Amino acid sequence: MASARPSSFQKLIPTMKQFVRNYSAPGEGTVPPSKAKYVPSSGTYPKGFLASSAHVGVKASNTRFDDLALIASETPCSGAAVFTKNKFQAAPVTVSRDTLNRRSGAGIRSVVVNSGCANAVTGRGGIEDAIAMGQKADNCFENNDDGKGSRSIVMSTGVIGQRLPIQKILDKIPAAHETLGNEHSHWLKAARAICTTDTFPKLLSRQFTLPSSPNTTYSVVGMTKGAGMIHPNMATLLGIICTDAPIAPAALQPLLTAAVTKSFNSISVDGDTSTNDTVAILANGAAGGSEIADQASAGYSELQTVLTDFAADLAQLVVRDGEGATKFVTIRIVNAASYDDAKKVASTIARSPLVKTALYGKDANWGRILCATGYADGVDSVVPEQTSVSFIPTDGSEELKLLVKGEPEKVDESRAAQILEAEDLEILVRLSETPGEEAVYWTCDFSHEYVTINGDYRT
Amino acid sequence: MASARPSSFQKLIPTMKQFVRNYSAPGEGTVPPSKAKYVPSSGTYPKGFLASSAHVGVKASNTRFDDLALIASETPCSGAAVFTKNKFQAAPVTVSRDTLNRRSGAGIRSVVVNSGCANAVTGRGGIEDAIAMGQKADNCFENNDDGKGSRSIVMSTGVIGQRLPIQKILDKIPAAHETLGNEHSHWLKAARAICTTDTFPKLLSRQFTLPSSPNTTYSVVGMTKGAGMIHPNMATLLGIICTDAPIAPAALQPLLTAAVTKSFNSISVDGDTSTNDTVAILANGAAGGSEIADQASAGYSELQTVLTDFAADLAQLVVRDGEGATKFVTIRIVNAASYDDAKKVASTIARSPLVKTALYGKDANWGRILCATGYADGVDSVVPEQTSVSFIPTDGSEELKLLVKGEPEKVDESRAAQILEAEDLEILVRLSETPGEEAVYWTCDFSHEYVTINGDYRT
Repeated sequence: MASARPSSFQKLIPTMKQFVRNYSAPGEGTVPPSKAKYVPSSGTYPKGFLASSAHVGVKASNTRFDDLALIASETPCSGAAVFTKNKFQAAPVTVSRDTLNRRSGAGIRSVVVNSGCANAVTGRGGIEDAIAMGQKADNCFENNDDGKGSRSIVMSTGVIGQRLPIQKILDKIPAAHETLGNEHSHWLKAARAICTTDTFPKLLSRQFTLPSSPNTTYSVVGMTKGAGMIHPNMATLLGIICTDAPIAPAALQPLLTAAVTKSFNSISVDGDTSTNDTVAILANGAAGGSEIADQASAGYSELQTVLTDFAADLAQLVVRDGEGATKFVTIRIVNAASYDDAKKVASTIARSPLVKTALYGKDANWGRILCATGYADGVDSVVPEQTSVSFIPTDGSEELKLLVKGEPEKVDESRAAQILEAEDLEILVRLSETPGEEAVYWTCDFSHEYVTINGDYRT
Repeated sequence: MASARPSSFQKLIPTMKQFVRNYSAPGEGTVPPSKAKYVPSSGTYPKGFLASSAHVGVKASNTRFDDLALIASETPCSGAAVFTKNKFQAAPVTVSRDTLNRRSGAGIRSVVVNSGCANAVTGRGGIEDAIAMGQKADNCFENNDDGKGSRSIVMSTGVIGQRLPIQKILDKIPAAHETLGNEHSHWLKAARAICTTDTFPKLLSRQFTLPSSPNTTYSVVGMTKGAGMIHPNMATLLGIICTDAPIAPAALQPLLTAAVTKSFNSISVDGDTSTNDTVAILANGAAGGSEIADQASAGYSELQTVLTDFAADLAQLVVRDGEGATKFVTIRIVNAASYDDAKKVASTIARSPLVKTALYGKDANWGRILCATGYADGVDSVVPEQTSVSFIPTDGSEELKLLVKGEPEKVDESRAAQILEAEDLEILVRLSETPGEEAVYWTCDFSHEYVTINGDYRT
């Protein structure tokens, strides 16, 4: 990391304020009517997990809204995380990775999160701040010190290049600890406190069973935030999942990694990858049943399906809140030579500005979809005369074929227009007629509002 | 290729017209005042090359503007080309590649180009049309048949999924041949005839000498078209370069490939790669001097420099005409571990919607530049605490440092605003303090107008 320069960073703050003019305080409280249906009014929460939020005022302009969240397990639990692959990793990413490595994913007690400042590009001082946040959370719990260091995962989200107002944050962590609870309101407040430019809090909960413990009902809760890279960047996606299923660290990391591949790593708002992206999972076993010890354990594959589906539903909420988005688009690539090929094609279509502007314009533009399919980097298995493109309406009506085995279909334009009027759309690309691998990706369109949000800071 | 279905394609045309509602006729004749400075009023053209244009009316709505261009060498000459890597390659790409392979790049006589229809996704019938265009051009020249087939490179640009009105095109090729000439007006008309949504014709000419033939003055002319992927896609970039230097096929292909790497393959408007992209070069030796026979020949490396610089200047005209662009941005990555790493970082910055919207918003947003640097795919040599980002003003004034070795600089915001007011800007990223490889990329910003051009077909 860069050498410590706390004093110069403090001096920078007035200057840096000029970079934050488009950044909103978290959770303005009002949810747009079109998004209200995505905010749950109740939930089923895992045993032995608690949540809370508190107001710090990380951004000086935020005098009202909670911007600190604490998620805790009543007993030490398993933890795992997937972190951004950006070379410029924020301090909390470095510190949380170290914590999980040092503890081999065991004995975790909490996740502590602030919004309003990403603690990114903050040098040695930023690392010290992230460590201090974790230690302060540790100190809230009894019998804490087992010689393996911090038991807390730390996350920050917001503007970059600024130091955290660390003393203000540390002062409020005990208050967050004192108000921990397991009611719906606790979880929703925590989900709101991690928001930045999000227009609604993103919270899901679900119950499930595993054949390995047929008489036990498990619960899982997840929260996430992110709405595209926000000004001045490097804020974006965080995710936290907690379950009362008994999962050992040796199983938890591969479960999360596989789930994230098909969820948080299968969404695109604008194709930029931030420095702070982190998805963490905690499992405390409070519901009982037989332990999922490793990948060979009974119940592992069923649990994988549950967690992947849950993570996918959670990740889709981020796309629903994409900056300026008017459409929610599922891109499904089937009959591919490999999952990797299918996902690369899906990702290329999802990131094409031409596809995204055509969707915004409600244009049945199979040419752009085909073109993106044809330039997917590192994919050798695309054969033009084997490729078909269709729209799948979300009202359950029949598939609209646009291109069949490389030949344009005669398209009923009025039906295409009708399908494109809906908020939701699925684009189906068949890479061959032979059954093969499938990948699914979720994205949104590219609108004037996206350009306004991300470009027009001075007008 | 897909099987022939000419009749169904003919039936498709009325349907396809619904896809072409945003497509302009080529060369509307009026050039925006801000672009007039890029259109030359005279030139120095290579000996033994001729150009012309003719009106076909490839698009039925085009009743006035020339949409067929013919470029010819008075004697059989060397030819080489670089084609799109898109898996969906248009018929003229397939046919021209075959022609060059069959002839080993020797004995080429002409390049025949139509705008208004890309002859892409047109099956076997499209291949036949492209072959017919080349043969019709061949028949205009004497003593043509050496048993190696067509001597003509064929290019098409415009909408996809439509068959060419091939008879109309074939009927006008002799007329184009009859009006061939080497005046400035001939070249400018040809450059205009290949345009589609371009707002100005893109033509450059230049003279040069080589140390291997010190008493000979050579000339080179180039024309290009492209302004981002145009509706409904797969039209875009074409380039044609002619020189009277004596270059054998064995030297011409590597010269062009290297020149394109640092020119046409170092620009980005929207990051989409079309099915028709082709850059071709012809060299007829009409100016005399000692032949550049292969890569070991005297003069090869000097010629490489000349051609790379020329191709870069030509390619930059495409960025100048980027759809909706208000900025011309040079991205220079220096002190990299390899040219490949430097170019990947440059390309990632150039394609980031967040960087491009920030440039449109005139925002000195080093965070987004840094972030894109950090997620450049397949680059392992980026080290955060070694990375510096600066703006280089185009008025020759001092560099404005934004980030130095991973630490944010205190930025003079009024100076940053002043620099960002100019149309031209250079972003300089130093990947280390140690001298290393350099890559340069050219791009434009992402504006509301881009979204309008590419999305708002129905409003």
